[in-house]
Formats: sequence, structure tokens, C-alpha cells
Amino acid sequence: MIIDAHGHYTTAPEPHNQWRIDQLAAFAAGQPSPEYPEISDELIRESIDNNQLKLIQERGSDLTIFSPRASAMGHHEGDQRISLEWTVACNNLIKRVVDLYPETFVGVGQLPQSPGADLTETIKEMERCVNELGFIGVNLNPDPSGGQWQTVPLTDKYWYPLYEKMVELDVPAMIHVSASCNPNFHATGAHYMNADTTAFMQLIQGDLFKDFPTLRFIIPHGGGAVPYHWGRYRGLADMLKQPSLDTHLMNNVFFDTCVYHQPGIDLLVDVIDNKNILFGSEMIGAVRGIDPQTGNYFDDTKRYIDGAKISEAEKASIFESNARAVFPRLDAKLKERGL
Amino acid sequence: MIIDAHGHYTTAPEPHNQWRIDQLAAFAAGQPSPEYPEISDELIRESIDNNQLKLIQERGSDLTIFSPRASAMGHHEGDQRISLEWTVACNNLIKRVVDLYPETFVGVGQLPQSPGADLTETIKEMERCVNELGFIGVNLNPDPSGGQWQTVPLTDKYWYPLYEKMVELDVPAMIHVSASCNPNFHATGAHYMNADTTAFMQLIQGDLFKDFPTLRFIIPHGGGAVPYHWGRYRGLADMLKQPSLDTHLMNNVFFDTCVYHQPGIDLLVDVIDNKNILFGSEMIGAVRGIDPQTGNYFDDTKRYIDGAKISEAEKASIFESNARAVFPRLDAKLKERGL
Repeated sequence: MIIDAHGHYTTAPEPHNQWRIDQLAAFAAGQPSPEYPEISDELIRESIDNNQLKLIQERGSDLTIFSPRASAMGHHEGDQRISLEWTVACNNLIKRVVDLYPETFVGVGQLPQSPGADLTETIKEMERCVNELGFIGVNLNPDPSGGQWQTVPLTDKYWYPLYEKMVELDVPAMIHVSASCNPNFHATGAHYMNADTTAFMQLIQGDLFKDFPTLRFIIPHGGGAVPYHWGRYRGLADMLKQPSLDTHLMNNVFFDTCVYHQPGIDLLVDVIDNKNILFGSEMIGAVRGIDPQTGNYFDDTKRYIDGAKISEAEKASIFESNARAVFPRLDAKLKERGL
Repeated sequence: MIIDAHGHYTTAPEPHNQWRIDQLAAFAAGQPSPEYPEISDELIRESIDNNQLKLIQERGSDLTIFSPRASAMGHHEGDQRISLEWTVACNNLIKRVVDLYPETFVGVGQLPQSPGADLTETIKEMERCVNELGFIGVNLNPDPSGGQWQTVPLTDKYWYPLYEKMVELDVPAMIHVSASCNPNFHATGAHYMNADTTAFMQLIQGDLFKDFPTLRFIIPHGGGAVPYHWGRYRGLADMLKQPSLDTHLMNNVFFDTCVYHQPGIDLLVDVIDNKNILFGSEMIGAVRGIDPQTGNYFDDTKRYIDGAKISEAEKASIFESNARAVFPRLDAKLKERGL
């Protein structure tokens, strides 16, 4: 079984996207938010059938862990109320996709974060996602200020109530930023990579997993710059008098395979322990074209895993069992289905 | 001949560092800066002999392109006057090192940048570095706000007067940030990597080298996340309707080898054209310890080049001829010496 741990609903129906535009316009005008539109099942099916579903079938994966479009989370827009309304709408839409395609998608929730807000609404919505919508994890934005980086590191006590609830619910978080409102940072070319790298370094500096030994984070996009600079990070942990990364972080931190060429994946599977790697494609996502060097889609990352010089057992762990270990609620669902 | 394109004077004599502390204290108190201290040749020799020179000799390189300590540039501290005073002091100290060890070091200058300031002083000091001190290049900080990223991208017209002068003087710039005053970003573990990645993505988005076909940038630390995600960057250039990276950037952008483990260097030399790679160690720099996996210093990057599966000719290009091509003033100096 092949589980894609990193898929976003980047093709959501137009009325959903238009509502967000209208909501922000209403906020700017000091008006109440418009009513959320009716969206038919047919419209949802159209948005999935010719996009994710088509590519999933062509490329040969089985199940996608599916969350709202990351770049559209926009936690820096509006305020806590606006973020909550939008998040609820996005998560409800994911739930509808999962209900329409229960064998192909399983849900992961967006969180209603907002710069300066406390985590009360964030935690409430996470509980709703898990307990009511049946989601198996969440996406956590380490920079709700959208490229301004005005909030505190992930190891700050500010985040602890969220982590306590994650541990209680036994759900992991993917550490995933949203759009950048800083002109220095292209969203998918700089802000995403930087956030991945930054998060890992924050974790090296802190002792978060001493306080939360079962907390689990997925750092997407192959861990940003981290595996390529694995020697630097091992050396920095040593200079900071922290334990070896193996014990300090790598029982709790996982990287996906959203690295869009064979040499990058080869490095990832070479330097990072097999247990810490989850198959992911970020499809349909940041890079949608075809690589002229290979004739295949850049983000068809299954091909790179297939082509990696590792054992079949190691490939199977990347494709399935590691994801089931990191997402226990997914494992339980699959077991219920006899899988 | 082995040229290390990335060395910083991280071991500068204490009176120099103390003067910076006193200068900033005076600024905060609204007082004029103190007089810069006398620093003897002996003190400079002590700071070099047991540090850089010892390691250079042990590791077997010949010439280090040497610039002031990057993390101490601190462009976000004080104002333009403070930055200029400090920069002049730092550059003059580099000049003294070069004069004491003319066969081992060649100078690269710090620039007196300051958030919100125009580039008048920056350009003047660059001219002094090249024309009076005999330096062969400069370090350019793409984020003088120190991790706040409040300035404009490298492709903005704001920077053009500086680039015009660089072209006129025929000197390249290493794109190198300084310390981070943003608690989210560890300096050498996050801010440095992020800046490298960010700079490259800014260059993809823009058309800078159309306006300056001979402008040359070195992106240090192995190019941040870029080579590991080379497929992503090739794909993003395509999505942004830019030319192929080969022609769009790679006649003008070069990466150093400050990547502290063999698999990282193996990836770098695999995916990046040989002509675009300059040997560098960042020694004595971010990571000073010994890798327990190899028994060698993490930053002894010569060992990784020696161990890479490339031809001797390719190694020689990385060690020498690429640096001579990127730094024509270095090449001229070496030719004067019959090298």
C-alpha cells in the first residue's frame, strides 16, 4: 500500500475560493462575513476527478493524507475570527472530499491560528477535526505572521497547550507555513524551505521532546535544507551541547519525500534513517511541470523512491508503515478496513 | 594550488571586539565612539598562527580568501555612521592580516550597510577596499535588518548602483547575512541557510543578469537548500516562465563547498555544474567540532572534495581555477607572482 502523506486541496471549487475573497473584503470594510455558498457534490467531484484522482491513479499511490491548500491558509490575514471562519470552511470541505472518496483520501486539518491570538480556538478546532471530522493530524504554521516571523519559536511555552492536546489526541502535526507577505520570500521557493530549516534548528536548540516524548512533527519538503546539511546540524547540536540528533530529535521528527529530483531523494534516503522518512508528493502543489531531463512530472516522487538504491523493505516503510506509525489514527482506520 | 574561497577572521584580537562593544554602548548613550585601540602585529599573529594558519597547514590548502567575521558585521546595530566606522575597522584589520601573511591570505571586504540607508557609503567603502586595500571582492548582506527581512530583494533597483560599481571594479560579491536578532532564526543553523536559499529564489524571480551580464555572486554554504532541491528550482523557473537555470543564473551564480559531510558534497558535485563550485570551508566558523562518524573536523571540507567521485581535473577546477575565474583580481595577483 502506498500512502502519500502530503497532499493539499489546491483545486478547491471556485465558490469556496471566491468566498474567501469576499470574506476578506468584508473584513476590510468592517462588514460581517458573507454566507458560505452551497457547493454541490458534483462540483467537488469535478475538482478532484480530473486532478488529484487522475494523477493518483496514473502514478499508482493508494491513499492521500489530504489537507487544505497550505498557501491559502493565510493566517496573517484578518484576525482570529476571520481565521477561524475560513479554517472551519476549509476543514469542512476536506471532510466532504473524504466522505466522497473514503478509500482514497483521509483528512488532516488546518488550524485557525492568528498572530497575537492565544491557542484557545486553535485547540478547539483541532479537537473538532479529530473527534468530529475523523481527521488524523493537523498542519501547524510556525509563522502565522506570513513571512514576517514575528511569533515565537516552536519550543516556546506558548505552544505547550497545543502540544498537550496533540499528545492526548495522539495526532502528529506537519510543520507547514502558508503564503508569504514578505516580498523577500517567494512562498514555495523560499518561505517553505526556510520554515522547514528554521523549525528543525529551533528543535535542536530546545528540549521540546524531553517535555513531550510522544509528540511527533513532520517537516515537509524533504526537511528543507536539513538533510543536505546533515553534518552541519550534527555539528551544531554538538556545539550547543545537545544530545546526538538520533536521540534528541529523531524519535519525534519525520521528513517527507517532497524533493523533486532523483539525487535529492538519494541523499535523503542515504543520510536520514529509514524510519524517519514518509512518502509525500505535495501533489498537486508547488511544481506542476514536467522535467525535461526525465520526461516525468517533477512532483512524481514515487519514481524517485522506486529508483532509490534501498531495499524493497525500506521502500515499503517509506511508502506505508512509517506513515502508519506516525499517524496512529490512520493505522487504526486501515486496520478497521482489514488493511 | 588550493584556494579556500570562504574564510572569516573569527578569531580577531580582543581589543578589536571590545571596541565594537564600547562603540555600541557609546551609541546607545548618545556619546561619540571611543578611539580605536592600538593592536600590535604580535597580537594579530597570535590570533592567526594558532588558529587559521595552523588548520590551513594541517589540512593542506594554500590561499584563503579572507573577510571579516560575518556574524559580527551586525548591520542592524546602530546606524549608518556606526556601521561605517565598524566596517572600516574590520576591513583595515583584514588588510593587516594580508600584509603579514601575503602568501596565505587575500582580502574580501565587509560593506557598511544599514537598514534604510542608501548605498553611498557602501559603494565608497567598496571602492576603498578594492582600490586602496587591494581586496578582490566583497560580502553583501541581503538582509541588513538582521533576520527581520525588512529590506528589498536583491533584484530591486535599490541595489543597482552597487552592482554598477561591482561590474566596473570587476569584483564578485558573496551573498552573506550576519547575526540574527530574530529569535526564530539561529544564525548559523537557520538564518545563513535561509538567506542562501532566499537569495537564489529572488534571482530566479528576477532578471538581474540581463541587466548585468558580468555580475557575479557566490552563494555560500553550498547554496543553502538549493542543490538538494535542484528539481524544485528548475521546476519553479519553468512555472515562472523564466529561462532554464543554466542560462538564467548559472553564468553568474556560484556555490561554495561549505557542506559538512560527504553525502552533501557528493550531491553538490553531482547536480551543479563543475564550473559553478568553489572550494570553501568557512573555517574557522560555524561548526568547529570533530565528526564522531569520521574522526575529522566537520568543516575540513577538503576531505570531502578529495573523496568525491569526480575527475582530478574537476577537483582542480573546484580547488583553484573556478575561484580565479570568479575573482579576476585574484587571478591577476597570482599571475604577478608567477602562479
